[in-house]
Order: sequence, then structure tokens, then C-alpha cells
Amino acid sequence: MDVFICLDIGGTNIRAALYPHNKLKPIKHIRIPTQGNGQSVEGRILALIEEIWPKKETVKAIGLAAPGYIDAKTGMVISAVNIPGWVMMPLRKIIKRRFQVPVFVGNDARLAALGEWQYGAARGHHDVVYLTISTGVGGGVIINDRLLMGSRGLATELGHITLQPDGEMCTCGQKGHLESYSSGKAIENYVIEQLRNGKNSTLSNMEVFSTKDIAKAAKEGDAVSKSAFERAGDYLGIALANYLHIFNPSCIVLGGGVIQTGDLILQPMRESLKKHMLGKVYEINLTITTAELGDDAGLLGALAFIKIKKKK
Amino acid sequence: MDVFICLDIGGTNIRAALYPHNKLKPIKHIRIPTQGNGQSVEGRILALIEEIWPKKETVKAIGLAAPGYIDAKTGMVISAVNIPGWVMMPLRKIIKRRFQVPVFVGNDARLAALGEWQYGAARGHHDVVYLTISTGVGGGVIINDRLLMGSRGLATELGHITLQPDGEMCTCGQKGHLESYSSGKAIENYVIEQLRNGKNSTLSNMEVFSTKDIAKAAKEGDAVSKSAFERAGDYLGIALANYLHIFNPSCIVLGGGVIQTGDLILQPMRESLKKHMLGKVYEINLTITTAELGDDAGLLGALAFIKIKKKK
Repeated sequence: MDVFICLDIGGTNIRAALYPHNKLKPIKHIRIPTQGNGQSVEGRILALIEEIWPKKETVKAIGLAAPGYIDAKTGMVISAVNIPGWVMMPLRKIIKRRFQVPVFVGNDARLAALGEWQYGAARGHHDVVYLTISTGVGGGVIINDRLLMGSRGLATELGHITLQPDGEMCTCGQKGHLESYSSGKAIENYVIEQLRNGKNSTLSNMEVFSTKDIAKAAKEGDAVSKSAFERAGDYLGIALANYLHIFNPSCIVLGGGVIQTGDLILQPMRESLKKHMLGKVYEINLTITTAELGDDAGLLGALAFIKIKKKK
Repeated sequence: MDVFICLDIGGTNIRAALYPHNKLKPIKHIRIPTQGNGQSVEGRILALIEEIWPKKETVKAIGLAAPGYIDAKTGMVISAVNIPGWVMMPLRKIIKRRFQVPVFVGNDARLAALGEWQYGAARGHHDVVYLTISTGVGGGVIINDRLLMGSRGLATELGHITLQPDGEMCTCGQKGHLESYSSGKAIENYVIEQLRNGKNSTLSNMEVFSTKDIAKAAKEGDAVSKSAFERAGDYLGIALANYLHIFNPSCIVLGGGVIQTGDLILQPMRESLKKHMLGKVYEINLTITTAELGDDAGLLGALAFIKIKKKK
């Protein structure tokens, strides 16, 4: 039987899955920490592929969802903030040399968009905007049944558009980006700032708190926590209005941990989107929905990427 | 000989040109005012096509560049601010019924982008962002050798993205859009506001002034006029950085009357773009250039649109 090996490389874990050529359920699945054993990350990836390599089946291709800027033509990771040392890392070349099968490398958020379109929440649509709101904000766009890559594969950095010149500092070093208002990190930073300014909150007596803690506090009525999600949702709505005007999609898919807090962020988002939309014409036949693939979005995106690339 | 009829419908004039199937120089060209004779605009368009219709040659198709929201699938003008009364105007249907040849209708800025890519400043590129900065701000995008249309043909309203929530009022009724900072109208409004606030300017003694007058005053050293273009260029640079991160094009084409003021707006734009770019990686192989087709962008865009549509 023909099979595909897919990897999802994150800052914390690397996951590998072995997919039969005709199914979405993997035959085998392995998860390892991204760092460890004094090995390089690329060394750990090679060992992981070795480990998941099947004894009987024929591997037809390897697909990788990787973080950071990836030159789609060469499969080179130009840089990846979450993986120290990955600068101009020729990931495709290294893997191809070792395993002698076709290798495809894509940005994780872009591939997740592809996965949601092929197998998830955006099935059947032709024009899709996908945003993932977790620690950071990433995205991918499908236009007329194709993944938007840009001239070098660097398109759809949807978390890094300026919505507020000279606004909050973003992790990328710029100011006022969507990510600096609507990401999990931004929500945490906002609460920290409010506490520093002496605002009352049930979180005041916690030394460290996560976006989940803030969501819990908000649901229990904590005003500071609620306002953190309201601000995040407000800017997310502004960004979505921009993306409607730019892409005129028929489907917007929202994924990532922060979206799982539900109406805490979705309700202010909906109000803001409505307020900022250019006209009702953009709402006709528009579906706004949450992602379906969860943690498997990257792996299934890599699988979809292999299948599209192999057709060409 | 086979010929094509192309129209560019503006708020002030309608232009029609008769193109041989294999050349970019029209055999015949007519310009009429958009309004007049107590006729409806669509009535004037039908009469104009009648007038330019050739005696000997065979008309293979009619292409129209029209303002406003156009449903690309049906050729319906959903609404057009510059042409009063055009709401749900079935432009393609009306023309097709009368002349019995294929009719293609597209938004003027989108078609101008297509024209610049096929025949003008962006020839040979595969991924292009085109912005036209005149009274308003419009745009079009080429992705992987295709015009970005969106699910209903309403994509790339590039002048209408929020760059400053609760910022300056835009002509569309929203606030803080690119158009409300960088358009000719925005530049004029800014100067009017400054004069109202008592600022000194050589324009103070003029009752009415245009963007051209402001450009002239700026070149002669008027501080208020200079700052108007600096502000316009600053926001234009922010928007271009956003579009680099969103589309990763290899070519940006800037057209429209305001761009013809040259470094007055281009210099602050360049500085702002540099400041707001996510990384130098977006600059590699990037060409930023001015439009080449001038007033013919709409007509040649309609011609390119016909040729692409007929190939399908």
C-alpha cells in the first residue's frame, strides 16, 4: 500500500503521522518534544521520520508543516521564531537527501487553512479566509480553490497587519498589529497591565495566569478579564472586516485556543465586524464558523498539501 | 477583421474604444459626458456602443470597466456611488440583449490592475498589487497569474481597510480607512481642516483648491501642504506594508493622479513602508513602480478582461 508521512513541527512538540493514501485516519502516530537529547531539531526530525517509516508500505511523499517564514519554492525555512537556530535551514533538502522521496514543506498556519478547506470546516467553499488565534495569530487564504502563497510563499501573515499605528507592541517588533491585540499573549499582557495600574480583579492574587485562567475569571464575572476579551474581539472584528473587503470570501474559519473561549471573544468580534463592514453585500452567502480539525489541522494540512502538489 | 469594443465608465466621462483583435492601439475612440440629454446613463452607454459599432468588422465581444460593486458572475452593478441611480443595475444583461455578443463587466480598478499586468508596468510578474490613488483609492491584485475576484467579485477594496479605528471619516461612511488618509479628497480635507484651525498657508487666500493646487503649494515650500502629503504617504506606506504581508507580491504598481505628484507622497510612503515592513525578506525581488497606462488603464484592462474570459 502507498502511504504518506506528515509532520507538524511546533515550538513545543513535533508530531508525525503515517497516512494511508486513501484515508484521513493515520496508521501510526508519534509525538516527541521539539527540543531534547542535545540533538538539533532537524536531527530529531530525521530520527522521527526514521522511527515512523513503515516496514511494508511504500512511502510516496513526506509533508511538513513548519513554523515561520518558509520559501515555498525551495522548502527553506528562512527563519522561525519558535525554533532557535533555524535561520536559512534547508529543511526540504536535508530530508530529501536522506529519504529519497518527494518532500513538501509549508508554513503551519497556511497548511492548516488548506486542511480545513479540504477536510474540515470550509469543505465545498472556493474562497476561504482562515485565522488561528492562539499564543500568536496566523492565517491562510484559499482563492478560487488555490492556496494563496505569494511570490516566495510568504503571503497571508494575517496576524501582522497594522490596525493601530503606534499601538501595542507586537512580538514581531512592530506596533499595533492584530496579533498585539487579539492573541492569547496580548490578552495576558492586557490583564497584567490593568493589574499593574491597580485595577481590581480576581486574578490579582495569582502570580502567573494563562489565557485559560483569564477566560475562567471572565466567565465568573471578573470585569478586567471580560474587557481583555472584549478588546481582543473588537480588533479581531476590525481585521475580519478588512479581510472581507480584501478577499470577499464565502467562508471565514476561526481556529486556535483563544477561539475555544467561545462568546467571550466571538460576541464582541461579531459586533465589531458588523460595525466595520463596508456593506451588507459582503454578508450575502458568507459563513463564519469555527475550525473542525483541532490539533490535527497541521498534519491534515500537510497531507492535503502533498496531494495537491503530487497532482501537478 | 475581428474587433472588440471596450468602455470605461467614469463619474464624469464615458470612453469607448474599438480595438483590433491583435493590437493595443484603438481604431476608433469616443468620449462623452456620463450625464446629459436627459438620458439615463445606461441609455447613453447603449447609444455610445451603437455609435462606435464598426460597419465592416465583426465585434466579437464588449468589455466594460465600471465603477462600484459589481457582481462578476452576473455582470450586475450592485451599487456605484459615482453614478446616481445605479443600484442593482443589470448592465451585462441590458447590453447583451441589445447587441447579441458576449459582454464582460468588471470593476474599473480591478480591470486597471489587469491592464497594468498584461500591458503595462507589471508585465512579466505573477503576483501584483495595484493601487490607484486619485479622488478615492481603488485597487486590484494578481495572484499566480489570475485576477483576485473573491466569491462574488467584490474583493480588493484596497482603499477600504481600517488603519486607524475611530480615525478620519471615509467617503464610504466608515472611519480610518486608507482612503480617508491618502486619497486626493483626504489631502484636500486635511488642508481645509488645518486652515480652519488657523494654520498659516499660501492656500489661505484661495476659496477653492484642488490636490494639484496643494501639490504646487507644497513644492513651493508651504508647510501645511507638505504635511498633507506627508500624512497621506505615511498611511499609504502602512497600507503597503500590510499588503506585502498579506499578498507577498513581486510587484507593486501605484497609479492615479495623486501618485503623479511624485516624491511629495512617494518619499514619506517609502520611509513609512520601510518602517512597517515585517522583515527584509519581503523586499527581496520586490519592484515598486508607477503605473504606465495612464488614462487608458480602464480601457486596456477591459480589453485584457475580454481576452482572458474568451480563453476560458
